[in-house]
This record gives sequence, C-alpha cells and structure tokens, in this order.
Amino acid sequence: MAAKFEVIKESQECKARLGKLYTPHGIVETPVFMPVGTQATVKAMTPEEVKTLGAQIILANTYHLYLRPGHELIREAGGIHKFMNWNGPILTDSGGFQVFSLGDLRKITEEGVEFRSYIDGSKHFLRPEDSIEIQNCLGSDIIMAFDECTPYPSTWEYTKESMERTGRWAERCKEYHEDWDKQSLFGIVQGGMYKDLREKSAEQITSLNLPGYAIGGLSVGEPKELMYDILEFTTLLLPENKPRYLMGVGSPDYLFESVIRGVDMADCVLPTRIGRNGTVLTSRGKIIIKNGIYKRDFGKLDEECDCYTCTHYSRAYIRHLFNVHEILGARLTTIHNLYFLLKLMENIREAIKQDRLLEYRDEFYKKFGYV
Amino acid sequence: MAAKFEVIKESQECKARLGKLYTPHGIVETPVFMPVGTQATVKAMTPEEVKTLGAQIILANTYHLYLRPGHELIREAGGIHKFMNWNGPILTDSGGFQVFSLGDLRKITEEGVEFRSYIDGSKHFLRPEDSIEIQNCLGSDIIMAFDECTPYPSTWEYTKESMERTGRWAERCKEYHEDWDKQSLFGIVQGGMYKDLREKSAEQITSLNLPGYAIGGLSVGEPKELMYDILEFTTLLLPENKPRYLMGVGSPDYLFESVIRGVDMADCVLPTRIGRNGTVLTSRGKIIIKNGIYKRDFGKLDEECDCYTCTHYSRAYIRHLFNVHEILGARLTTIHNLYFLLKLMENIREAIKQDRLLEYRDEFYKKFGYV
Repeated sequence: MAAKFEVIKESQECKARLGKLYTPHGIVETPVFMPVGTQATVKAMTPEEVKTLGAQIILANTYHLYLRPGHELIREAGGIHKFMNWNGPILTDSGGFQVFSLGDLRKITEEGVEFRSYIDGSKHFLRPEDSIEIQNCLGSDIIMAFDECTPYPSTWEYTKESMERTGRWAERCKEYHEDWDKQSLFGIVQGGMYKDLREKSAEQITSLNLPGYAIGGLSVGEPKELMYDILEFTTLLLPENKPRYLMGVGSPDYLFESVIRGVDMADCVLPTRIGRNGTVLTSRGKIIIKNGIYKRDFGKLDEECDCYTCTHYSRAYIRHLFNVHEILGARLTTIHNLYFLLKLMENIREAIKQDRLLEYRDEFYKKFGYV
Repeated sequence: MAAKFEVIKESQECKARLGKLYTPHGIVETPVFMPVGTQATVKAMTPEEVKTLGAQIILANTYHLYLRPGHELIREAGGIHKFMNWNGPILTDSGGFQVFSLGDLRKITEEGVEFRSYIDGSKHFLRPEDSIEIQNCLGSDIIMAFDECTPYPSTWEYTKESMERTGRWAERCKEYHEDWDKQSLFGIVQGGMYKDLREKSAEQITSLNLPGYAIGGLSVGEPKELMYDILEFTTLLLPENKPRYLMGVGSPDYLFESVIRGVDMADCVLPTRIGRNGTVLTSRGKIIIKNGIYKRDFGKLDEECDCYTCTHYSRAYIRHLFNVHEILGARLTTIHNLYFLLKLMENIREAIKQDRLLEYRDEFYKKFGYV
C-alpha cells in the first residue's frame, strides 16, 4: 500500500495540523518525531525499546548502509525491516546529505556526485538513479529523492544552480522508481535562504505530484529567526494534502516552531547523540549528568518524567556510570532523551487537538528556560 | 536473615550436589553461575535483562566501587541493591584480588596493603577491617574475607607466608564484621598449588565456622590438570554443609569440572567480556562474529539457542553491528553469552537431579569441540 496522508484536524490558532500517514508497515500519527537509526540501529537501543518509548517510525541512512554492510546484503537479508528487527515504518534518506557532509573530495556534476568513502578512501559515484536503486534494495517505506543540501552560507547564484540541479535529479528519481505501492518517494525542496529560489524549487518539486515533500537545507547553521522565516514561507508553498517533512530538526524549540508552521514530520540524531555524551533533556532544561554537582544527587533525571530510567535510577548512579564509562549510562540517557522528545510530540498532538498548542508551547518554554 | 545453605541432593556419580542458598534478597539454587557487575552494572545490561536471562545472584567488585563512586556514596544511596536497581542477592569480593592485580606499587605488610589507584595514582592503604567496612557500606548479601590471591607460580615458602597471613586477615575480618543477619562473611582458602598448604589453610579457615568458604588462587594461569587436581583436593577439605565458591571460573569446561568436584558457586567476567569483543559461545564451540565468513550468514548465533538475540537477529546483522562499532552489537552478544552459561548451569542442575551429569558433560564436550 502506498503511503497515503490524511489531515485529521487543522489547528484554529496556527498552521499546525493532525494527520495520519499510512505506510505498508503501519499508520503514523503526525506531527511525528522520527528517531534516527543511521546504521540500521537506533544507537544503543533495541527496536522493542524504541517502540516502547513511543516511536512510530524511524529513519535510516542510505549513505552509511550503502558503504556498510551494503544494500545488496540487506536485500538478501530480506530488507531492512527484517535485517534490523523493526517491523514498523522506516524512512531512508537519499544519501545526498552525507555524501556532501562526510564524503571527501566530492565532485558534483549533472550526472551525480563522485566522492571518497570516509571509511577507507575508496572512490564512489552516486547518481540519483543509484540512490533510488539502493533505497529499493533497502526496502524502506518512504524513500527520498537525491538532492544537494545547499550549505549555509551560499551565494544566490550557487544556491540557484544547486536547487535547479536538485530539481532535475528529483525528476530522474521519479522516473527510475517503480514500486510505488511498496515505497513512497518524497521530493525535497531546496533554495537555501532565498525566498525566490524556495518558491521556484517548491513549484518545480510539487509539480512532480509526489506522495510527500521535505524541506531541506534548513537548520544548517543559519540564525534561528532566519530559519523560522524561510520555513514559514516554504511550508505555505506546499500542498495541504501531502505530508511535510522538515529534515534534521530535533531540539524542543525547533520542533514546536516547525509544527506551528505546518510541519508534519521531523528527524534528528539530537536525543540519541547528546544522550550518549551525557547531556539530558529535562522539563527544566538540559543538564550535563557528568557534572560534579550530581555526584550525590539521588533524585531522578527529570522530576516530571516517568520513563524507565527516571523510575529506576538516580542522577548519582547515572553520573557514576558515565564516570566509569559503562555502556548502561548511554543506554539510560538515550532512553530518557528519546522518551522526552517522543512524549513531547505526543503532548503537541494532544494540544493541537485541544487548540491550545501555543499555550502549551509557552508553558514549556518558560519551564525549560528558553527566553 | 543470614545466608543459610541446604544441600538438597547429592549426586550418585560424583561430588556434585544440588543446594539452596538463602539470602536476605532471595534464594539461590546451586550450583550457580554468578555474572559479574564490577562497577555496579553487569556491563551493557539492565538488571531486568540480567534477571530475565536467568541470573539468580550477581557479583560486584569492592575495589572498583571503593575507588568510584566510593562506598560512602553507595551507603548514602541506600546500599548497592537500590543504587544499581538489582533487588536479588549480591556477593561482593574483598577487593584483595584487584589490589594485587590492578594496584600499582603495592606493598604488603601484616597490617594490610598499600597500593596506588590504577585511575589516578593516588595512594591507598587497605586493611582487612577496611575491606569489611567497605562491604558493610555496600550492603551486599555475601561479603568476602580480605585475602591475597597468591600468584602462579610462587615458591612454597612465599605461598606459605601469604596463606598464613590470609588466615590471620580472615580472623580480623570475622572479628570486625557485626551484622551477620544482613551479610554473610565467607572465608577464602589459599595455599597455591601446594596440597600441604591447602590443607593447612582449609583447616584454619574452616575453624572460623563461617557461613561459606571460597577456593581462591585457582585458574590463575596454572595447567588445567593441576587446577583440577588442587580443586578436587581442596573441596574435600571443606565441610559438606556449607556452600563452596570457586572464584573466577566461567568457561564451560571449568564449570562442569568444578561442579563435578563439589563446587556450588562460581563467577567470571568471561561471558560478558568476550561477548563485548565479539566472541560468542555456541553449542558447537566459540565463534568470532566479526569474522568475514559471517558477512552473509543469515542464520542465528547458535542454532539451538532460544535467547532474545538468537530469536531476533542474524549473524550477518550482529557482524554488521560489530563492524560499525554499534553498542547494540555488544548488547546482543552479552545477552547470548550470559544466557548460554546460565542455561548451561540450569541444565547442569537438572542433570544432577537425574544423576546424569557425567553423560551430559560428555555430550556437551563432544558437540562443543573440547578434546
């Protein structure tokens, strides 16, 4: 069954909406936060844990899986769902972002991108068709068109050239992809920080009539206000009956602000990555658990949290685990951070239902310590 | 309630026996394998997982916890059970072994041992009384007398001197310890590879009438046959109505052979340590999962195993996880290896019940590939 999207309710106070995204591996309630499982594992977690924490859909990275263990191997294993033991929906990115951010000595041509592997220096050439072929092998529910995530800052001229190429690549991706029942191809709008280019990109990409659209090239280092401005402008250019996916966003404020502006899906390594480094999201703001002040703190990570970590362990114990480099430390903070963001999105959906999202946001910001 | 030991059944074919060890945190069926949670965590596992895998009692290391986070802190936390969220029985060692194996520049006197921390080089002095005091703070169910694990090889003269000091230290430990209802103090028989010294040590230690006795100073590098010989000799010197604990043993053959010689308890880091390095125990012998031959092996780690790992993941997937340094890899192999040994001990108990332990051992050895 092809991914189908249904808007259930539109907020009375902002652009937020509640939706349902139907995929071959289950229904996703939107707005949704997607934990990232870069190498076919959400770092430090089992799939059952990720599900128990409230995740409805996860993301995996095409670039990494192409290099190791290889997409052919995953196809032989019966696809990524079976390979990694996650039977819910999976979205894969196109590999484009990593080719540009991790690929060494990359060379972009109209045909595709030549790059060297960050692992062994081996030379690779990735065309839009290759990206789709790889994602076909992986067998994810939602696949992404191959694009260039234009760096920030970039000149208007370069951004235009890059955006137009991304547009032509999207056409080639659509052309190459075959099994639309099994996998839905989403297009990606680029155009950097230039509204005229965002407009052109949105026009061209949406003309392909794809089952969903992503907003790329944001949260790449630009000021927060600029990000919000371009995001607001771009979501308005996207059709209301298709899911809108903001790529690479996961801090609580970015999640609130993008949902308020009409975003339905977001993903980020933030909760898992900062968790493994000992940074914990709490209702009163972030804390760094390795800090000496928690040495004899026998309270929970977050007084208001009822996750497995908070109901069984003290800050002092978790600090000890980090202090002595125990794996359980990374597990416990990852559990907590994922739960925190997934619960936040659940609360956001509930607030949309009750038309009190802005009020909920203000309450959250005040307590969390956002100015 | 003080630890009480009850022999349920004696084997008709060897010295093996079935027993029950009663502790303030639950009953342990013996013979038992105790997973090691050195730093108040069985590496990579949650306590619930360890319990689900079949563990009845775990071990924690006094030396490590004394250095980090400190025994006073654990006492403040409400004791080690609460601190680490394990409400089953816990045994702590005396710290002696680590002082000798990890302590730098150690200096042994009658009074105790001076050593430098392996973490920061700081100087410490540990007397038998300190070891008991630390273990009192930790609050484990079974505590061990402070001893010197005589290195192999050692001269008869040194072994005698060391064994006699260990004996005097055991008396001081017994003298210092107070709350026998809460914590049972076990003595440790030393004497190296010299039967006359083992005899003297056993005589002296058992004269203290403690609730349990350990055999120390074995499996420290000596040949297998010598180990079995000294072990068999020493167990016969220990009272039948007290539990016998062989320290630091965990390979399948050592477990079989020590149970056959009358051992009731054993502990080892083996399953967790080799698991994190990618070595897996299977019914057909050990495999190194990182090996290239498993790249496209979509079978389970062990065809005969029904643990979580084996019922959900392929060798190819686990190899991939190790190959890309994902934490889940270490988790999955740790789960499997712990389950393997805990299940083995369960099977051993069942075989004792049916008086077919020797037959079971021979079957196991043949399949596993022991000569």
